[in-house]
Amino acid sequence: MSAAKKQPGKPTSDKDNLPCSYARFGPDEPLKLDCGVDLLNLTIAYNTHGTLNADKSNAIMICHALTGDQFVASEHPITGRAGWWQYVVGPGKPIDTDRFFVICTNVLGSCMGTSGPETVNPETGKPYGLEFPVFTIADMVRAQVMLLDHLEIPDLLCVAGGSMGGMQALEWAAKYPDRVCSAIPIAAAAKHSAQNIAFHELGRQAIFADPDWHGGAYALKGTVPSKGLAVARMAAHITYLSEPALHNKFGRNLQDRDKPTFGFEADFQVESYLRYQGSTFVDRFDANAYLYLTRAMDYFDLSTEYGGNLANAFRDTPTRFCVISFTSDWLFPTSENRAIVEALNAVAANVSFVEIESDKGHDSFLLDVPEMFAAMTGFIDAAAAPRNIPQRAA
Amino acid sequence: MSAAKKQPGKPTSDKDNLPCSYARFGPDEPLKLDCGVDLLNLTIAYNTHGTLNADKSNAIMICHALTGDQFVASEHPITGRAGWWQYVVGPGKPIDTDRFFVICTNVLGSCMGTSGPETVNPETGKPYGLEFPVFTIADMVRAQVMLLDHLEIPDLLCVAGGSMGGMQALEWAAKYPDRVCSAIPIAAAAKHSAQNIAFHELGRQAIFADPDWHGGAYALKGTVPSKGLAVARMAAHITYLSEPALHNKFGRNLQDRDKPTFGFEADFQVESYLRYQGSTFVDRFDANAYLYLTRAMDYFDLSTEYGGNLANAFRDTPTRFCVISFTSDWLFPTSENRAIVEALNAVAANVSFVEIESDKGHDSFLLDVPEMFAAMTGFIDAAAAPRNIPQRAA
Repeated sequence: MSAAKKQPGKPTSDKDNLPCSYARFGPDEPLKLDCGVDLLNLTIAYNTHGTLNADKSNAIMICHALTGDQFVASEHPITGRAGWWQYVVGPGKPIDTDRFFVICTNVLGSCMGTSGPETVNPETGKPYGLEFPVFTIADMVRAQVMLLDHLEIPDLLCVAGGSMGGMQALEWAAKYPDRVCSAIPIAAAAKHSAQNIAFHELGRQAIFADPDWHGGAYALKGTVPSKGLAVARMAAHITYLSEPALHNKFGRNLQDRDKPTFGFEADFQVESYLRYQGSTFVDRFDANAYLYLTRAMDYFDLSTEYGGNLANAFRDTPTRFCVISFTSDWLFPTSENRAIVEALNAVAANVSFVEIESDKGHDSFLLDVPEMFAAMTGFIDAAAAPRNIPQRAA
Repeated sequence: MSAAKKQPGKPTSDKDNLPCSYARFGPDEPLKLDCGVDLLNLTIAYNTHGTLNADKSNAIMICHALTGDQFVASEHPITGRAGWWQYVVGPGKPIDTDRFFVICTNVLGSCMGTSGPETVNPETGKPYGLEFPVFTIADMVRAQVMLLDHLEIPDLLCVAGGSMGGMQALEWAAKYPDRVCSAIPIAAAAKHSAQNIAFHELGRQAIFADPDWHGGAYALKGTVPSKGLAVARMAAHITYLSEPALHNKFGRNLQDRDKPTFGFEADFQVESYLRYQGSTFVDRFDANAYLYLTRAMDYFDLSTEYGGNLANAFRDTPTRFCVISFTSDWLFPTSENRAIVEALNAVAANVSFVEIESDKGHDSFLLDVPEMFAAMTGFIDAAAAPRNIPQRAA
């Protein structure tokens, strides 16, 4: 277990010493947020893999999902687990670090080193808590643009991500079309649905209900709203899987017993699994960050700034798109992904659509799904071809 | 607001004076539970509508769902709302109280007058709380059988119910085939799925997480675990609706504002709706009862006692069945209802199957769905015909 492991009341400065890079922006380089606030002293924690080529033409931005982070292809310092996209990012993998320069930031407002509610507010000397400004998916991408400028990289060969990461990929392509050669939104949506807002609100209410949350000021109180955050995680986790996946994985199997105990222990394997998901999550994630990130997703409706017509977001786009969905994903179902494709088709954009047969649900994008790897590999290599990047090793 | 409204620390004896009937069984008439405990001093709170005919051939048992009660066709004493199945039960309605004698009990372990965790344990003089024995769907039906015997009614023209009520209808038909002329399980399943167990466990964890729950002994502490129970209700409520229903009803509409507030207020209508559902539920429902009833549903797998083969539960059954499902129900989807029909077909039982096109989700069985009313009316009238019951008024 790393030194970064959260302890009640422990200052959060350990998040300044994670095994990653940090870009620190001064008070004269504010991040201008959609809510109207200028966020000063922005820190972006990020990881890179591979080498930027002389042309600076081989950079790929990977955007993580709600509870992801910059440890896309390296060991997580708290959990010790392999990078969250180990199947996709690495030497010879679809996002081939032998040829591409991969950047993955911890998104704005999260809790792995980038500025967020855990960060100390320079004006008060205390962690922001709920004084951190509410931000949007567009703000997350603005922060990534600042990093790209900081790294003096003109544009991206590709921006890719699943779920909330796919929202960022869409935002990148819509707002910075000249800096995005290709985009791969996976298991995403151009707007968050009523049902998804409802699930997020449920999770937030679970956190608000925890007396250890203290109106968001738990860092000052020396508490951690673990129970509320665990309940929020359990709710979300159910939505990340599919009914068939739960059925195939657990069914009605009992946990370490032959018969039910007629009590409230975790008689069923699925209960034990959920409890485990809840309890391990609180070791690595911050409750306030969870509130802010879910809110950013709720607010996401890319069409809003384009007169309610999503197609307008992509008019005359030079970006190539590969939209990927999974048949059993009920959180960001194929219909939502198809709506993106239809908007792109309406403006004659270059778009491939790959709907992958999978019974694993929304989380399929994190799993070993060869059909997804094949689609990504072919698409990225085609985008790389005109940019003076070597071919993939045979 | 009725005197039955729950107040922290208030004794629960007000549940003995609800506008309904009570059957009280003595210590010599135990309810023998599946867990091995004999529950003494059982009280069953129930309502009846219509008149039992001289042949005692016109009785219909209606079984309620998880958070339902005996106020199936009369005003709820706490909420003041009309009976929960007002569309189905009443004069001239599908379950026609001009011709049938309707019985609806508050199920075992619930909180509207029937014995449950709120009840005072005669051995300790305190509310049972978690000392109430864990019971099953079969135990709920055993209690209803005791009531039927108490009322000296030999058999039922029909047993009908949706969701958990449908589970009870299946249990009735399987265990007491000679006392069930016909059965209408609606939006039900013969076993609770892994996903449904997961949602229930999530709700229970939300209750356990509430410090006002006090290990179930909140009545003694003068507290009510309102926040935890509200979160549990919100989670469940999402599952009772469908994604299209939420989309059509709320979409991404904002609540009483033109733009998002960049905060954690209920910006979206769907959030406001969920919060309302959570907060009103705690006025009428008991947190411990919620734990026990969800547990009973989790444990339900009718095939278990029949060698894992559901068909064996209905071998040689004289009961007629009408199984009803709704296309947009993802909690008890058509596939689960079809599994019941297939088991009945395997033993050549008399079964109709009606899958109703509805975008309203699981809760459709509580709504104004004319196709359901037509199916029920035809089915019940056919069952009534040979039992010396007058024809429906033209």
